[in-house]
Amino acid sequence: MKIKIGIVGGTGYTGVELLRLLAKHPHAQLEIITSRSEAGKPVTDLFPNLRGYVDLRYSEPDVKTLAACDVVFFATPHATAMYTVPELIKAGAKVIDLSADFRIKDVKLWEQWYNVEHACPELIESAVYGLPELHRQQISNAQLVACPGCYPTSMQLGLIPLLEAGVVDTQDLIVNAISGVSGAGRKASIGGLMGEVGESFKAYATNGHRHLPETIESLSRVAQHQIQLTFVPHLAPMVRGIHATVYANMTQQQTQSLQDLFEQRYKDEPFVDVLPQGSHPETRSVRGVNTCQLAIHQPQNSSKVVVLSVIDNLVKGASGQAVQNMNIMFNLPETTGLDNIGLLP
Amino acid sequence: MKIKIGIVGGTGYTGVELLRLLAKHPHAQLEIITSRSEAGKPVTDLFPNLRGYVDLRYSEPDVKTLAACDVVFFATPHATAMYTVPELIKAGAKVIDLSADFRIKDVKLWEQWYNVEHACPELIESAVYGLPELHRQQISNAQLVACPGCYPTSMQLGLIPLLEAGVVDTQDLIVNAISGVSGAGRKASIGGLMGEVGESFKAYATNGHRHLPETIESLSRVAQHQIQLTFVPHLAPMVRGIHATVYANMTQQQTQSLQDLFEQRYKDEPFVDVLPQGSHPETRSVRGVNTCQLAIHQPQNSSKVVVLSVIDNLVKGASGQAVQNMNIMFNLPETTGLDNIGLLP
Amino acid sequence: MKIKIGIVGGTGYTGVELLRLLAKHPHAQLEIITSRSEAGKPVTDLFPNLRGYVDLRYSEPDVKTLAACDVVFFATPHATAMYTVPELIKAGAKVIDLSADFRIKDVKLWEQWYNVEHACPELIESAVYGLPELHRQQISNAQLVACPGCYPTSMQLGLIPLLEAGVVDTQDLIVNAISGVSGAGRKASIGGLMGEVGESFKAYATNGHRHLPETIESLSRVAQHQIQLTFVPHLAPMVRGIHATVYANMTQQQTQSLQDLFEQRYKDEPFVDVLPQGSHPETRSVRGVNTCQLAIHQPQNSSKVVVLSVIDNLVKGASGQAVQNMNIMFNLPETTGLDNIGLLP
Amino acid sequence: MKIKIGIVGGTGYTGVELLRLLAKHPHAQLEIITSRSEAGKPVTDLFPNLRGYVDLRYSEPDVKTLAACDVVFFATPHATAMYTVPELIKAGAKVIDLSADFRIKDVKLWEQWYNVEHACPELIESAVYGLPELHRQQISNAQLVACPGCYPTSMQLGLIPLLEAGVVDTQDLIVNAISGVSGAGRKASIGGLMGEVGESFKAYATNGHRHLPETIESLSRVAQHQIQLTFVPHLAPMVRGIHATVYANMTQQQTQSLQDLFEQRYKDEPFVDVLPQGSHPETRSVRGVNTCQLAIHQPQNSSKVVVLSVIDNLVKGASGQAVQNMNIMFNLPETTGLDNIGLLP
Repeated sequence: MKIKIGIVGGTGYTGVELLRLLAKHPHAQLEIITSRSEAGKPVTDLFPNLRGYVDLRYSEPDVKTLAACDVVFFATPHATAMYTVPELIKAGAKVIDLSADFRIKDVKLWEQWYNVEHACPELIESAVYGLPELHRQQISNAQLVACPGCYPTSMQLGLIPLLEAGVVDTQDLIVNAISGVSGAGRKASIGGLMGEVGESFKAYATNGHRHLPETIESLSRVAQHQIQLTFVPHLAPMVRGIHATVYANMTQQQTQSLQDLFEQRYKDEPFVDVLPQGSHPETRSVRGVNTCQLAIHQPQNSSKVVVLSVIDNLVKGASGQAVQNMNIMFNLPETTGLDNIGLLP
Repeated sequence: MKIKIGIVGGTGYTGVELLRLLAKHPHAQLEIITSRSEAGKPVTDLFPNLRGYVDLRYSEPDVKTLAACDVVFFATPHATAMYTVPELIKAGAKVIDLSADFRIKDVKLWEQWYNVEHACPELIESAVYGLPELHRQQISNAQLVACPGCYPTSMQLGLIPLLEAGVVDTQDLIVNAISGVSGAGRKASIGGLMGEVGESFKAYATNGHRHLPETIESLSRVAQHQIQLTFVPHLAPMVRGIHATVYANMTQQQTQSLQDLFEQRYKDEPFVDVLPQGSHPETRSVRGVNTCQLAIHQPQNSSKVVVLSVIDNLVKGASGQAVQNMNIMFNLPETTGLDNIGLLP
Repeated sequence: MKIKIGIVGGTGYTGVELLRLLAKHPHAQLEIITSRSEAGKPVTDLFPNLRGYVDLRYSEPDVKTLAACDVVFFATPHATAMYTVPELIKAGAKVIDLSADFRIKDVKLWEQWYNVEHACPELIESAVYGLPELHRQQISNAQLVACPGCYPTSMQLGLIPLLEAGVVDTQDLIVNAISGVSGAGRKASIGGLMGEVGESFKAYATNGHRHLPETIESLSRVAQHQIQLTFVPHLAPMVRGIHATVYANMTQQQTQSLQDLFEQRYKDEPFVDVLPQGSHPETRSVRGVNTCQLAIHQPQNSSKVVVLSVIDNLVKGASGQAVQNMNIMFNLPETTGLDNIGLLP
Repeated sequence: MKIKIGIVGGTGYTGVELLRLLAKHPHAQLEIITSRSEAGKPVTDLFPNLRGYVDLRYSEPDVKTLAACDVVFFATPHATAMYTVPELIKAGAKVIDLSADFRIKDVKLWEQWYNVEHACPELIESAVYGLPELHRQQISNAQLVACPGCYPTSMQLGLIPLLEAGVVDTQDLIVNAISGVSGAGRKASIGGLMGEVGESFKAYATNGHRHLPETIESLSRVAQHQIQLTFVPHLAPMVRGIHATVYANMTQQQTQSLQDLFEQRYKDEPFVDVLPQGSHPETRSVRGVNTCQLAIHQPQNSSKVVVLSVIDNLVKGASGQAVQNMNIMFNLPETTGLDNIGLLP
């Protein structure tokens, strides 16, 4: 079986990462990759790592040719996919959106955080939030999947077992997370220059990052009531990787150890790896791969739980998870094309 | 006035940083710098940045010649200074210890965390904890000053105003901190290789870092009761800098804004700079200088306080603070030799 | 077909890279990986990126069990393999040595540069220098292959077409090369600390790097007379990658363009990619893969040729080339297990 | 004495570096700093490292107020200063231009490389090329100084003694140089993103960098005949620093060693430091300071000379050298305000 694939917005980091993964995917057939600014140019002019593997040229986005694909990935900035997705859905194509357009069920909340009116609110309900560890069944039947953000993926995988088991205070959750600079995308800016962010470290968006409402909404569904989450993102001087440090307070004595709780919850998950007790995951261990590595601590035997969670923001945090969703949607083994080993060092 | 200065342990990063600062200090006269392994070698063989400024050679440590100095700095690993300090104190020299040997008043606690018997417990009581923002008066009269650790400095400056004002829950304090790699010192190891820590990020010592008990002891004195602190250090792929992100819960409505509280507390402090509301300090802004920059946030108008605190781990976190202490001990203006501008970018 | 594989010296960067590549190689069966210092420990304790892919433990090196393998890789420091290889050869195993022990035909020269007596000079003659682009035929029949060094690989691929065509002055060749820090290996040292090499750049070994004699010997065979080469290596603040900048003087007007010359020479080479005229290869384009990307320039239309050559020092410069050699020795398609895409960004 | 200072173009890296140096300069009085885009904003909003040291706000450029300064620095992109300088010169102000507008005497050559008509060719003759090691006397009498580029400074300091002594073949000079990313300035671009240049290395502008004609023109004056120079710049994944590796062929046996030649030539130069024989300078040794460190090698006792030259591209390569020129123009000791120690590590 070959899946005909279109990619909208192929000049960014999630775009090139999709190409890297799909070019080696045994069932993927890359048909179209669009870019208004680079139309006509071979993809390998921008990304010479793809030489010999991808011989497409960028083309102007065209709904008709996209609609002829089996699945269309949107690797676009937010508030872009929502203008094209309705036609594709109508035409019967499956859509996997890596942007934020369909992640939040509460349209008002989405419009408030993204500061624009939603172009197709009627599609939001049917969109499935593409975190396979939560919604595998619905993803397999979905026509439209909204891939979670990178931070939300790392945070949720660290919190799901605690919330499902009901063992922590859901009104005082904290995530202190750091990201490599590729998380900010590939667009001209002063703030992303290596001269600005190299050899330095800072927090940002302390008052509210756009990945916060999505995470709260999803985790509140998991907890079955509204949670309270403080989330402070930071920028680290490296290219790839997210490290989330989760802090929560135990509310009851467990019969089961937290280590067991996490191992049980994720024992059948191909891309969640609970490290042995006492471990400290490193972002480099998951560089280039779709795995989330987790470690669970209770410092000084206190009632404070600390969960350490690492992903590659461009893989499990974006393009890898998108391919994982595609595999589920097309009834392929979930690890197809994603069965790689992290590039360490 | 010239202060005759000896430095014990001059081949590490805090040693070279002391030399950098003292070589330009108008009242410092560098007399001796010791190193067993490099004895006889010019300092500039190891550190060519000092060429033209420091013409000392390393010498074997010798108590008599050290005792002839006005002040002796220890830039040694922990559990080293304590064997030599008693003789120097007896001889009348002042001592500024950058290591951990005299930071903790509770000897048993120190011995438990450092896993060695203390060699001169009788001196601990008289040692002053060298955080000028807390103990300026005692430092000015001290013969023995124990410089705080790098993490403890960044953490305490972010928490002192909150604890003094009694506005946060002292039983649930969290500090998520990151350090550049120079914090681990300049000694042969696999763990510190750039091949191991470059382009990667990890937490470490989640179960208990040695800077924890020192911080709890000092802040408990500030709060006037025992505090609870969760501290998770992380390693960032950069050379210099500490960024501490402090999380605390407000316990009462304030009449004064937190911004005002911090600005008031530090208005006369030459090396603590409270940034304007909404700021995000960057470690590069304090690269090479003795300043701590702070920003205070209340994300989403919640009762959670987030304080962002940056220092240069080798300056305000070590050698700069040591010189600041020296200035106080010798009745010099506190900024003497420290009045520099951060190297940005 | 399954090839039974032993690896001697599995705790360094070339060791873990061999494991990463061989764990996904369809014909490789990892049998043994040795390490004196880590014997008994699971490989994944040191390298968590291999979790789920490699379940070996390190074992003490034992010649008998190694001799039962089809092929033994040596990922050891120089002057180590030579003590064990003779027995393995006698026992009929194939050997692929990633170290320097069998790279140089002139034993005296080798002993002079490596400052030790060679333990089995009688084997040197039969050892094949494992640069497939030069010696594919001999490699396919070899029992003992000496993998080229990382710098020599990048240099030779940039010079071979020029020397074979006889179009440059062989008495004045210059290579200015830079390497990431993983080239120095994974062993405790001060010089390799990120505190020493991060955010800095320097040349080293200007008076003669050990990769010089190997390169001169091999290229002199190519040129069919003794060449003169000036080689200055530099250390760049990054983990992986070599960039060689080759300078040579044209000695005759060509009928064929240099671009054509290189494209012709390498048109059947699966791992040498000549970029379009005017390109500047980046090390990141070949991160994690066995490809060498080349670009050829004649600045300002002068008679100076500048060839730019990039490889991943741990892949085409070491472990990937070793696997390429294995494929050739076992009559497998040369790209087996090496058909990956560079990790950009 | 206080020198009234204006800075045109204060939002880039050379601008903030000028501020850092001049804010501590005992004779500098910062009057004006202009920026069209940031007019009205405090300088410290952009550069918080200057808090407490610089309380200026950016203003719209205005020739009259600039003309009232004693000296005006241009930290602008090329082809900007030339439109304003004539009026300032007429008004009697001194001008120090950090851009390329007045570096090249041959106007046609300049126009060809910078692709724009020169706006005041009549001023070029009187402009002095501000490399104090060559033109100290003329600088002291100049009204208009053109500061050399960063690469040209590092290259020339490595070549001047060889060319003055006439001991190398001037028709075959090669400089292989690398720069940190701050050399590309502080302006929005994709090419400068850390996601593009972090953890990677590449050559660029192999066919001709704009710093080439300036260097050839200046060094040809030194050699007293036209030289031939091949110059290949590279981008290294770090923020600050230039490392130039110079290759030249000895044309005659020297009576004097090259080491002596360099030491003699620079013995009275406050900012050129010839390292001991066998040294390898590191860019970090000169981080933040105006020093050029040099080492001279003859690899393998050949007739090839290799000179290693490091500077901080923003200091000796730009703003520091500009201040050095100012000191000379105002008859101040040349090291005034520049007498700092490199920030290592």
